[in-house]
Amino acid sequence: MFKKTLVAVSLAAASLASATAMAAENVDLLIKNATVLTMDEDKNVYEKGLVAVKENKIVAVTDGSDLKEFEAKKVIDADGDIVMPGLINTHTHVSMTVFRSLADDVPDRLHRYIFPLESKLVTRDMVRIGAQLGNVEMLKGGVTTYADMYYFEDEVAKTVDEIGMRAILGETVIKFPVADAANAEEGIKYAVNFIEEYKDHPRITPAFAPHAPYTNTTETLQKITELSKKYDVPVLIHLAESDREDQVIAERSGGMSPVEYMADIGALTPNLVGAHVINVSDSDIELLKKHDVGIAHNMSANIKSAKGVSPALKMFDDGLRIGLGTDGPMSGNTISTLDEFNQVAKVHKLVNKDRAAMPPMKVVEMATIGAARALHMEDTIGSLEVGKLADIIVIDTKAPNMVPVYNPYSALVYSAYAANVKHTIVDGQILMKDRTMTTVDEDKIRNEALAFADKVRKTVIESGEVVQ
Amino acid sequence: MFKKTLVAVSLAAASLASATAMAAENVDLLIKNATVLTMDEDKNVYEKGLVAVKENKIVAVTDGSDLKEFEAKKVIDADGDIVMPGLINTHTHVSMTVFRSLADDVPDRLHRYIFPLESKLVTRDMVRIGAQLGNVEMLKGGVTTYADMYYFEDEVAKTVDEIGMRAILGETVIKFPVADAANAEEGIKYAVNFIEEYKDHPRITPAFAPHAPYTNTTETLQKITELSKKYDVPVLIHLAESDREDQVIAERSGGMSPVEYMADIGALTPNLVGAHVINVSDSDIELLKKHDVGIAHNMSANIKSAKGVSPALKMFDDGLRIGLGTDGPMSGNTISTLDEFNQVAKVHKLVNKDRAAMPPMKVVEMATIGAARALHMEDTIGSLEVGKLADIIVIDTKAPNMVPVYNPYSALVYSAYAANVKHTIVDGQILMKDRTMTTVDEDKIRNEALAFADKVRKTVIESGEVVQ
Ligand SMILES: [Zn+2]
Ligand SMILES: [Zn+2]
Repeated sequence: MFKKTLVAVSLAAASLASATAMAAENVDLLIKNATVLTMDEDKNVYEKGLVAVKENKIVAVTDGSDLKEFEAKKVIDADGDIVMPGLINTHTHVSMTVFRSLADDVPDRLHRYIFPLESKLVTRDMVRIGAQLGNVEMLKGGVTTYADMYYFEDEVAKTVDEIGMRAILGETVIKFPVADAANAEEGIKYAVNFIEEYKDHPRITPAFAPHAPYTNTTETLQKITELSKKYDVPVLIHLAESDREDQVIAERSGGMSPVEYMADIGALTPNLVGAHVINVSDSDIELLKKHDVGIAHNMSANIKSAKGVSPALKMFDDGLRIGLGTDGPMSGNTISTLDEFNQVAKVHKLVNKDRAAMPPMKVVEMATIGAARALHMEDTIGSLEVGKLADIIVIDTKAPNMVPVYNPYSALVYSAYAANVKHTIVDGQILMKDRTMTTVDEDKIRNEALAFADKVRKTVIESGEVVQ
Repeated sequence: MFKKTLVAVSLAAASLASATAMAAENVDLLIKNATVLTMDEDKNVYEKGLVAVKENKIVAVTDGSDLKEFEAKKVIDADGDIVMPGLINTHTHVSMTVFRSLADDVPDRLHRYIFPLESKLVTRDMVRIGAQLGNVEMLKGGVTTYADMYYFEDEVAKTVDEIGMRAILGETVIKFPVADAANAEEGIKYAVNFIEEYKDHPRITPAFAPHAPYTNTTETLQKITELSKKYDVPVLIHLAESDREDQVIAERSGGMSPVEYMADIGALTPNLVGAHVINVSDSDIELLKKHDVGIAHNMSANIKSAKGVSPALKMFDDGLRIGLGTDGPMSGNTISTLDEFNQVAKVHKLVNKDRAAMPPMKVVEMATIGAARALHMEDTIGSLEVGKLADIIVIDTKAPNMVPVYNPYSALVYSAYAANVKHTIVDGQILMKDRTMTTVDEDKIRNEALAFADKVRKTVIESGEVVQ
């Protein structure tokens, strides 16, 4: 009798399910049973939530009560794991992975070590090999979009296109001879060609990347500003980073700060994304806000080089467009922003002498929707909301460092590291599944990088040509 | 003809190998093709080195040229990976893993939140469940020895014994009622029983753990000092950690600093290991050195609570016994010292305004032989040297964040995180192999912790009894 009832019930349930299935929405990918951190305006969190994806867009983000209304080609059962927007790295030099762990603590390293090293070793091949490795590192650490500044950015673009990530790629313009241009004018030409080639790519935004105010002339900076308006592309720059920069710009401008100088020459625009922004006064911050400039906050790299701590928390609280970046792998040295969360929270507490300063939610915000705002991409990425692009990551909450999760923001900021990312989805495609890359051959990429590193050892370290 | 020659050559090789095998040394475990960081006095590094283990001891550490002289029951081919001494966590409260991510940023948290929480929830079961989880986290992060301070340390001891780790376990003594003692006198009694039970354990060193100078009376601190000499066991204590402590001790002692007070009452001895040691003057540091006190430096926890940065670099350079600790999982929040390396290096650079300060090698030293010195265990652990105990870890250098390795110290400090640890060996036994635990059931341990976390949610968070 009891059994019969059960059968009857399940028949009823089946016919109900079938009726539901008739009305179900067909989607390509459904992530269910997730702790969903939407990072939307209200910071909604769903404990047993779902995210549904059709093609490359998010079509539903809910508390999961409507689970039966979806019929999906692929289903990921998150089993309570954290599902959140893909991380956005607002500043790196991805190709420099092949130089990682070289001469880390040399004083005045950029000028004494890195520029000479690059003049010997930067080639198309190096840029490609380094970018491939860095792309894998970022995707395995949950970064789905990054902003890059380097040479031969068309090579970086090919790797981004191939692996399936999203990126803003800035071709460097600098006043001395570099690997892909003899001077700033040639750099601009290179950048314009690159922009024209990639301006319609669905996942790649080409950009100008004047290295810094002090390594370019006023004329170059103004020319780039004008061209960025013409092509409607971003301008990525290192800004207010060092005392050296302060001095050069003060001499050039009759005592202005780098930010004042950039405003004065008309180069502070909503297209601009400034990296570091350490040496800024309150009035500099007001100028940055007034001109709607984006800001990349690279805590880990900045303290490694003892440059100081950017007033990033104040800028965030003042409503500026600011997100986390890692800087390049010779600076950070890892390029997954997740590995910075801990330092960002704790160092701001330290310098503010307040354990409540920079709470975990703000850090996660600066890594997602804040970073999207910094890159002026908040309409398409940075949160899990219907209509946005499907850039989604799943964070393993079963690793021993993540147990238990009373507060998902705390767990992400104080406990998680890159290897806790389980799956990474960009533009609706699963690019990493259970820590395995799906679109590229990680072993091949690593072996190419290791072979290049052998060349670095022979040509630079063993010859003693560049001081280690 | 060509084939025949080949055969002849390999026969000759075989007979040579066989002749070598006759004279070979039989060992239990051989790790070969390793980048061996010995952390011995000369900081020898072997690029294709080997480490051989017999029973629980290291019997050879070489450049690998004598590889054929060993015949091993088990062989690990490190394939270039980094092989180094197991990490030593000089200060934690392992059982508190079950509270991780609770109320992280509450002001005056210890007194307003943690003590009330513990008075409700600390039981034998909680201590066991939390310790089991923390042991797994530490072993998976390369920690082979740790120093713990908590309640029911006999429960922690059982978990350490079972999993196969090494630990100094300090039973807490504190002046107010706690889960396993109504007052300091009962706490001392509990500790003495525990010490008598475990004093001959091969991997566990039982100890006294007076919570702090300001949470105990002078009489209690003197009694513990005397008993620690009688039993020849360590005394673990929080020391010079907070302004509150400074005030209480100054009032009690007529204006002394905590370190001066401890010296004055005769409680600064070579048995003492002080955690934090933030608020210390140069003369305090001289006192600590004179009395040969060990020091646990917990950077990550200290900056999270905005307590400030210990002058750990000065103490290290002055030759004091100092090593890295994580503090408890409500403080750090992870308990693998490897996850602190990055912050230790970078925050000391920041506060010293010098990118060359706290170079990677010093950080690795403070995590290995320095930490062994802090615990007065440098004769048996902390470096890979013949005759030492076989506590050894293997670090994966193929993960994308670790590629390439020009400098293994830099790679460990600036790039590695806990999940890059591939194998962990304690006392000659492989306790983690390819990220899988060999002596305990990780899933079962996690599920027990998750079930306990549900209880915490119900009894504390949902009832609103303790402020979140
Ligand atoms: Zn940069
Ligand atoms: Zn502690």
